[in-house]
Amino acid sequence: MQVEVGPDDPRLGDYVRLRESSLRRSLESERGLFIAEGEKVIRRAVEAGHRPRSFLLAPRWLPGLADVLARWPDVPVYVVDEAVAEQVTGFHVHRGALASLHRGDLPPLADLLALDRVVVLEDVVDHTNVGAVLRSAAGLGWQGALLSPRCADPLYRRAVKVSMGAVFSLPWTRLPGWREAPGLLADAGFTTVALTLADDSEDLDRVAARLVGGKVAVLMGTEGAGLSDHWASSATVRARIPMRAGIDSLNVAAAAAIACYALAPRSAS
Amino acid sequence: MQVEVGPDDPRLGDYVRLRESSLRRSLESERGLFIAEGEKVIRRAVEAGHRPRSFLLAPRWLPGLADVLARWPDVPVYVVDEAVAEQVTGFHVHRGALASLHRGDLPPLADLLALDRVVVLEDVVDHTNVGAVLRSAAGLGWQGALLSPRCADPLYRRAVKVSMGAVFSLPWTRLPGWREAPGLLADAGFTTVALTLADDSEDLDRVAARLVGGKVAVLMGTEGAGLSDHWASSATVRARIPMRAGIDSLNVAAAAAIACYALAPRSAS
Repeated sequence: MQVEVGPDDPRLGDYVRLRESSLRRSLESERGLFIAEGEKVIRRAVEAGHRPRSFLLAPRWLPGLADVLARWPDVPVYVVDEAVAEQVTGFHVHRGALASLHRGDLPPLADLLALDRVVVLEDVVDHTNVGAVLRSAAGLGWQGALLSPRCADPLYRRAVKVSMGAVFSLPWTRLPGWREAPGLLADAGFTTVALTLADDSEDLDRVAARLVGGKVAVLMGTEGAGLSDHWASSATVRARIPMRAGIDSLNVAAAAAIACYALAPRSAS
Repeated sequence: MQVEVGPDDPRLGDYVRLRESSLRRSLESERGLFIAEGEKVIRRAVEAGHRPRSFLLAPRWLPGLADVLARWPDVPVYVVDEAVAEQVTGFHVHRGALASLHRGDLPPLADLLALDRVVVLEDVVDHTNVGAVLRSAAGLGWQGALLSPRCADPLYRRAVKVSMGAVFSLPWTRLPGWREAPGLLADAGFTTVALTLADDSEDLDRVAARLVGGKVAVLMGTEGAGLSDHWASSATVRARIPMRAGIDSLNVAAAAAIACYALAPRSAS
């Protein structure tokens, strides 16, 4: 349903000031929405079952998304030129297409604990890193992700974008608390592998060679501080990626890619 | 040498509109400068031998950088409050410290070709990806990087920042041309490993198991298109990271981290 609007129209309220992350965090959680950017990502969001609240499109994106819009005839489609989009959102919308979607419910924790390969993030607060980790995990055949309460929101626009939509295809949910997380995973039958440079850590390759089959959860902490002592010491095994002396630790997204590759379920070769 | 300046002072010309990448690219190449952001990165740049042109600092950063400034008594230090810094640069400078430095000369190609483990990037045009690849390569013990003529500039502010200064510690240079690059590497004695999802590629693990010692160059292309057919087919071997069906390729920075990990020189274990 195409609707004419100007830049100050209150119906564009879902899209205001997309670069102001603290404003957006409270606005999106209050209204239970998130923003998808670009035709491909919008398409993946609706295909994953997220119900659109509205679309904000430059005219040239109408044909490409016609089938999506037709599935939701009652959802408003705000067609604006790129200058108006920029005035509302506060930045140049490179891909010219935005959608506001309902968050819906996260899957229950029990569904995630029933899987065989899950990534577990402790306090990764950067949206780019969360999105990048989920993309790599999905691409490398992991089945789900668990996030500590303080992790950044995977449905934040930047995380969605960096994940290339993996935040929709890879099941994920929040852990109910931080302290009890390692115990929860152990009770569910996971071998927990903590990624850490701690002195008692083993080379990741050796850990990977021992882990044949079974349920595996890899635990990664925020960069800078890395995993907490509590999570690292509670894990079944501590694994390190061999690093060159004197170099800062890898970015958490790079470390996650390596760990998901090294610990992925392998067919016998 | 502390200098008083206002926001419109022409002496701040090195720092204007840092978010406008096309303006910055021409300005920085014309003047032979690059911008380092944050105390840690500035420190690494000067320690790596880059000569500062000037500093732009909020007052609270003066003590922390006092030793660096003392080494360059004739270099102007523009002390401004954060509002002025924002007015000049066009964004909020989170770390409150900027430096403009001379680029200096890149190392000769022959120096890079004499190494044993180099990463070779073909047309990776995103600064974030270039910075992330160099950071992972340095952290995982690779010795240098070669960039095709169209790759993004590792000394662009965003690349420098994402690399955590690895663009200063890891030797890198430009390839003189695109077409002859695979031949150059072969002539220099490298086994060239092309990262590709081409049909005739082998699992990366198998390739890694065969490569014991010797000179190794890993070739990676831009995401989206991936490596060109020319580079992929000219390489000694084509390696693939096993991916889950239906998932987009990994981000090039994630793929690079995995390849640098899998093909890193290993001590016998």
